[in-house]
Amino acid sequence: MNLWWTEQQTPGLRLGLKCAAVLEQRRSAYQEVAVYATDTYGRMLALDDMVMTTEADEFVYHEMLAHPALTLCADPRRVLVVGGGDGGTVREVCRHAAVRRVVLAELDPEVTAVCRRHLAGLTSALDDPRVENVPGDGAAYLAGAGAGSFDVVLVDAPDPIGPAEGLFGAEFYAAAREALAPGGILVTQSESPFLHGDLIRRVQVAMRATFPAVALYWAVVPTYPGAMWTFSIARKPPFGDPWLAQRPAAPAGDFRYWSPQVQRAAFVLPPFVGALTEADS
Amino acid sequence: MNLWWTEQQTPGLRLGLKCAAVLEQRRSAYQEVAVYATDTYGRMLALDDMVMTTEADEFVYHEMLAHPALTLCADPRRVLVVGGGDGGTVREVCRHAAVRRVVLAELDPEVTAVCRRHLAGLTSALDDPRVENVPGDGAAYLAGAGAGSFDVVLVDAPDPIGPAEGLFGAEFYAAAREALAPGGILVTQSESPFLHGDLIRRVQVAMRATFPAVALYWAVVPTYPGAMWTFSIARKPPFGDPWLAQRPAAPAGDFRYWSPQVQRAAFVLPPFVGALTEADS
Repeated sequence: MNLWWTEQQTPGLRLGLKCAAVLEQRRSAYQEVAVYATDTYGRMLALDDMVMTTEADEFVYHEMLAHPALTLCADPRRVLVVGGGDGGTVREVCRHAAVRRVVLAELDPEVTAVCRRHLAGLTSALDDPRVENVPGDGAAYLAGAGAGSFDVVLVDAPDPIGPAEGLFGAEFYAAAREALAPGGILVTQSESPFLHGDLIRRVQVAMRATFPAVALYWAVVPTYPGAMWTFSIARKPPFGDPWLAQRPAAPAGDFRYWSPQVQRAAFVLPPFVGALTEADS
Repeated sequence: MNLWWTEQQTPGLRLGLKCAAVLEQRRSAYQEVAVYATDTYGRMLALDDMVMTTEADEFVYHEMLAHPALTLCADPRRVLVVGGGDGGTVREVCRHAAVRRVVLAELDPEVTAVCRRHLAGLTSALDDPRVENVPGDGAAYLAGAGAGSFDVVLVDAPDPIGPAEGLFGAEFYAAAREALAPGGILVTQSESPFLHGDLIRRVQVAMRATFPAVALYWAVVPTYPGAMWTFSIARKPPFGDPWLAQRPAAPAGDFRYWSPQVQRAAFVLPPFVGALTEADS
């Protein structure tokens, strides 16, 4: 079979993945949800023909979205995951013994349903008794969550076009600050400096208008456009100095990308990336 | 114009780049040498339809191939670049005031000729009086270079299939050790842990059989297959402890990816990469 799936990553950039099988392809109320068996990167979840995650590199994104916030927060008991219906982020959050409650606010329940059928490695923690599903608009959920109701908020959303647009603006960050407990932490994926420098600047500026402590860190996700993937992180007072100091107790288990040392290294920005975080930029 | 250039990165993986123009396309004695004007990543040099370098990310590869070795070496006066006919590595080497002589041993003179016409940002240092062109087989040159004739050897070669195969084996590393001065350093690109873990293991094992100090570091190059790109580094005795301690004087000028801090962070390996460097693996 010579079947190729192609993502138009930018108007001038394509990723092509040869597929052994189309495992599922359906239209939900929001988007096309599909899982392909690719030859190179294992099974892949695609939403509207964009890679969301593949078995070969999902661990990078999910470990690096979850563990920095959870190892910085003094007592991460209550965690909100906005988006993240594939379950990968929840799986990593549940590895922290301190976590008592994980709310998963995914807009599209079909994403979770499809992943349960074909990507069980991602959804393995969704039946953890600490996990609570709250299907719907994560921004609306956050706005009504009540002051101080979460210690960590992780935004695991697709690109800020279409349904996820409301998760990348000042209004959302203000709601996150309100919903966070003192010392709480917000992390959002913020795309690639090779292709989306303007978005990174915009997210950093909007976060700094709302939070007193904001930073950027990164990891490499080969199937994402530009491959060098950033995460924007913000913290609500009070916090110690330095505000990015990790708790001594690391999460238990084996990690493939994350380690306490990798986390520290991830905040070291190449100059062309650091320039995107500067206040006057 | 809807013209797409495609690299078959692996049998199941393709990179597609939309091109505004084909600037040059010719067959040399060794390979097809071409330069395209891509919409997303600027001008691109391709050899046999594989990306060698693009204007948008060449700085990552060239800065990270050159500066670690040159800042670790106590007195990097004499540098050999094997391959690297596009000039990018020589450009970075020439930023070090300590360098007195740079030998460029590129197999295919057409690569340099084509880059001089279309990628002047890469070739800008090729007329530096310290640079000496030695066209031909870099492995043969190294074998005849004489004991202790170089302080740093940088292998800037394509994938270890075809002409560059001889640059990734035990015989080459033995010749490099002989040609290096005491305390001298060898660096070779060693591809991506997402796609070429076996090559990384093989290079690390072969280097460890020849050198007492071997390590791996990495950077992100979005147009290379797997994007997470490794460099294998080895050092000939004597050297201080730690053998990866940088000289206090950094090279002058502005860098886009490299910094002393980025260099240290680049040696922090995610666990799935570190596993490739373990002796018993």
